Amino acid sequence: MRMSKLIGERFKEKPTDCNLISHEFLLRGGYMRHVTNGVYTLLNPAVKVMHNIERIVREEMDKIGAQEILMPNMMPKELWQESGRYQSVGSEMFRFKDRNQKDLVLGMTHEEPCVDVARACATSYVQYPFCLYQFQTKFRDEPRPRNGLIRLREFVMKDAYSFHTTQADLDDYYYNQVMPAYRRIYDRIGLSKAVAVESDNGMMGGKVSHEYTLLCPAGEDVIAHCDACGYYANSEVARSVVIPSGKQVAPMQYIDTPNCKTIDQVCAFINTQPQQLAKAVIYGLKDGRHVVAFVRGDYEVEECKLEHCCGSELCDADPEFLHKMHAGSVGFVGLDPNAKDYVILLDESLRDEHNLVCGANEDGKHIINVDYARDLNYTPNFVDIRKVRAGDKCTCGKGTIKLEKGVEVGNIFELGTKYTQSMGMKFVDNDGKAKTPIMGCYGIGITRAIPSIVEVNHDERGIIWPLEVAPYKVHICILNAKDKSVLTAGAELEQALSEENIDVVLDDRKVSMGVMLSDADLLGAPIRVVVGRDFVNSDQELIEKQVEVSSKLFGIHTLVRYGDVFDYIMSLLKDKK
Amino acid sequence: MRMSKLIGERFKEKPTDCNLISHEFLLRGGYMRHVTNGVYTLLNPAVKVMHNIERIVREEMDKIGAQEILMPNMMPKELWQESGRYQSVGSEMFRFKDRNQKDLVLGMTHEEPCVDVARACATSYVQYPFCLYQFQTKFRDEPRPRNGLIRLREFVMKDAYSFHTTQADLDDYYYNQVMPAYRRIYDRIGLSKAVAVESDNGMMGGKVSHEYTLLCPAGEDVIAHCDACGYYANSEVARSVVIPSGKQVAPMQYIDTPNCKTIDQVCAFINTQPQQLAKAVIYGLKDGRHVVAFVRGDYEVEECKLEHCCGSELCDADPEFLHKMHAGSVGFVGLDPNAKDYVILLDESLRDEHNLVCGANEDGKHIINVDYARDLNYTPNFVDIRKVRAGDKCTCGKGTIKLEKGVEVGNIFELGTKYTQSMGMKFVDNDGKAKTPIMGCYGIGITRAIPSIVEVNHDERGIIWPLEVAPYKVHICILNAKDKSVLTAGAELEQALSEENIDVVLDDRKVSMGVMLSDADLLGAPIRVVVGRDFVNSDQELIEKQVEVSSKLFGIHTLVRYGDVFDYIMSLLKDKK
Repeated sequence: MRMSKLIGERFKEKPTDCNLISHEFLLRGGYMRHVTNGVYTLLNPAVKVMHNIERIVREEMDKIGAQEILMPNMMPKELWQESGRYQSVGSEMFRFKDRNQKDLVLGMTHEEPCVDVARACATSYVQYPFCLYQFQTKFRDEPRPRNGLIRLREFVMKDAYSFHTTQADLDDYYYNQVMPAYRRIYDRIGLSKAVAVESDNGMMGGKVSHEYTLLCPAGEDVIAHCDACGYYANSEVARSVVIPSGKQVAPMQYIDTPNCKTIDQVCAFINTQPQQLAKAVIYGLKDGRHVVAFVRGDYEVEECKLEHCCGSELCDADPEFLHKMHAGSVGFVGLDPNAKDYVILLDESLRDEHNLVCGANEDGKHIINVDYARDLNYTPNFVDIRKVRAGDKCTCGKGTIKLEKGVEVGNIFELGTKYTQSMGMKFVDNDGKAKTPIMGCYGIGITRAIPSIVEVNHDERGIIWPLEVAPYKVHICILNAKDKSVLTAGAELEQALSEENIDVVLDDRKVSMGVMLSDADLLGAPIRVVVGRDFVNSDQELIEKQVEVSSKLFGIHTLVRYGDVFDYIMSLLKDKK
Repeated sequence: MRMSKLIGERFKEKPTDCNLISHEFLLRGGYMRHVTNGVYTLLNPAVKVMHNIERIVREEMDKIGAQEILMPNMMPKELWQESGRYQSVGSEMFRFKDRNQKDLVLGMTHEEPCVDVARACATSYVQYPFCLYQFQTKFRDEPRPRNGLIRLREFVMKDAYSFHTTQADLDDYYYNQVMPAYRRIYDRIGLSKAVAVESDNGMMGGKVSHEYTLLCPAGEDVIAHCDACGYYANSEVARSVVIPSGKQVAPMQYIDTPNCKTIDQVCAFINTQPQQLAKAVIYGLKDGRHVVAFVRGDYEVEECKLEHCCGSELCDADPEFLHKMHAGSVGFVGLDPNAKDYVILLDESLRDEHNLVCGANEDGKHIINVDYARDLNYTPNFVDIRKVRAGDKCTCGKGTIKLEKGVEVGNIFELGTKYTQSMGMKFVDNDGKAKTPIMGCYGIGITRAIPSIVEVNHDERGIIWPLEVAPYKVHICILNAKDKSVLTAGAELEQALSEENIDVVLDDRKVSMGVMLSDADLLGAPIRVVVGRDFVNSDQELIEKQVEVSSKLFGIHTLVRYGDVFDYIMSLLKDKK
């Protein structure tokens, strides 16, 4: 590839709307161009990186016996009605009609067509287990696409679906095949900082699930981590141990707390600490009811956990309901456990507390010294609905929870029978009985991997692509391209390397050395060769002249005889493979 | 890959709705599964064929300096409004709205986003020429999808777009780069019977265009061909020479032709031949007018040519207009050349005829012995609007036109400035002036190539894949898989070949030899190995036992010592590469 022909704008100024370094470098390096909200065209260097990632993922998926297929983008409504997701998925799904007014959807994930294939073909236990995978575009109507290729509305994923006759077989594939394969994939593509993190299973159903999260400051996810036991969990589901404050029982008492609406105001007024308070948070539920949730005053409610406990999505509470409940003074003493319009949930952080302060369900009043056993006329429903905090004790009993930021770069789910059951998939087992197969699914965001790699493989001037994914392995800069002998020397090296199937970019432009090197920093080839410095002034034979070879990746900066440079580069590429 | 795990139904019975052998074999071989009208899932063997085709196309496109990019499926209305195609393309385009009610389309072709990229990046003549290409899914809402993977509503294409500063440079790239690359591609993927055929440019605009058409009986296109000069043209645009009937001038005369509505009836009634008649055909035009077209009675109107002459799509004529014009007795004598509601066009086949018979524009009457120069009060507009016939004389003057059937497997267009002009793309030329670049575009249907290859590479029992595109290069059948030593012998060969990166399928199922061989015929591997015939009854060492190696592709059927079979297969694959 010649730089003079390589289509893509490359420039020095940081674009105004870039929060992430990957977004900035990929725009400044001419890797992509915006088309519409959350939709980009990928230019040549980005496509090459994508193909390299795909090749690695394909090799590793094939190694664990998965077979590649290709399911369509466009699917009929009926297929998604079978699983119930045509109804349950909201506006993230693109829906449209064809010329005959038939309802179609664009694939945001492919469980339904995969089960549709498998149920027709895998009817006997002897065919199990098997795993189908594909590289396919996904369409998701994100409410807020952002950060370049990180959060798109159209992107490429590798998605895989495995089918098993027993839970033990799924567990074995999940933990002993897929997880090691994912480890190899992330290590090879330059994302060794991606870790398997316990995660929420969202709209997928099933129980066990992990996200692969790249730990880096640019991430939007919060990951709880315990050094002692190696626990990693998304904060949406992370657990921790609460240390009770240890207060002794005292008599319950109603007190006036005029104008005290917040935790801080109440604490100040009655001179106590937040951990002595039972904080009430009220949400609406999609079924029209409300949930009144209590956590210890020094914790926050984790909405993801709360949704799971309620089995429903949360929404804003109805203002009339808030008024009726005396919002600001809500407490669990005196609430009706049998109420039809609300549910009461208490976080486990409150279980072992005595002498709690809570609202009196009357404006301007609180109760102090509340004790469950003594003061409640119902048995509280204790659940885990709090956000873990940095410094919490880990459930392992040894370590302490740290919080880190991360980007989700893949996910794996044990789906169980959610889709096979609803879509009526059966196989005949070796006992002659018809049974429902058990499924797992395994995703890797291929498009998202590109900026993720950049986030953890760059310096302040540009990208340092890992060898296996680099769009061009060697970047040859021709200083003084007006001098034909210099251009020829560079072109001959380019030709020799290309014949060994090595991707080379040659900068043949008549631009300043500054522009050339700055563009080379953005294209991030593992090996850079500068040809022609002092060529003109030297009387030596070409093969005796010196060229500069440098590599940020390998930590090299050296002069090499032109006659030796091909062999030198080949040995570098071979050694570091 | 093990056959016991290979997902896909394979069966013997011809499915009822298959008109093409490719459709039958691809269904019976488990290559694909129907999802909805014109939409399929491709299973593992089909995906492997597709990747092999893509690899070959990519290699050849890279060789002519094209650079791969990836444009999105989902595009905003505004981009297609710029070129005018949001308005001009009809219901073939899928249109929908996102969550914010913004209008989006699914890409059926990608001129618009490609010009959008190029106009931002290629602003100076030094960057020209360049060519951008991609492999991307296309969505076209075909009124009648059919023939399996031949006519789909969702399919993968390689589409390329080149940009030039001069027409001469485009011509050079078109004829001297792209055409030879396409020749190499088709030869390598097993479609050497694909020929470049002059074609209509349809909705693409531009002047020069060629379809690559695979000549085979399954095709729906009709191709005119002259052996003498090598002329190939789609019948939609094919030209030929008309031999005048040579009649002498005689006096014009009105005659009664009661109940004569058809050419045959008129000929029988007045005892003449069809070539003596001027046949009238009336169509509606989209702008509300009509066209009254005349061809010699032994020819038919070619609607595609007529549309080009009219600059409008055709539609059914209005019944009231037909009545007013005395349909069945329409003739050019007495029509009004200045009429506002219709256009008169005469095919060139009528130009040198005298003594023509035509309608008298009065029910039940015709005129005989019409002569233009003498009998018309206007100058007729002679154009080429007839369908060529087999046996017509070629315009080269030497050969005769033959008609053959074919499947379009690619197309190339000189687009000119249709898109660059409408979308305001400019570059600064070396004279400092802003000019509009000239474009070409080049498509290959990747999905369609799969059945096309089957159409011309099969026998009565199954597919015979060409080596480079074959999904599996070697198919190992284990006769008597119950005998572990036989399975091990097969598995060791599989392992050895896989380590050389050769795709192998191993049939480890406990099924009859008939089923095994029939499935092998459908999977069509170039080399088949049968392991285990008489293994059990033989006392020899394993390496001394005989295995059967056969190849329909190479015309081989032989016994080979097990100890030699790996080397034998490797040498076969190497020799035939």
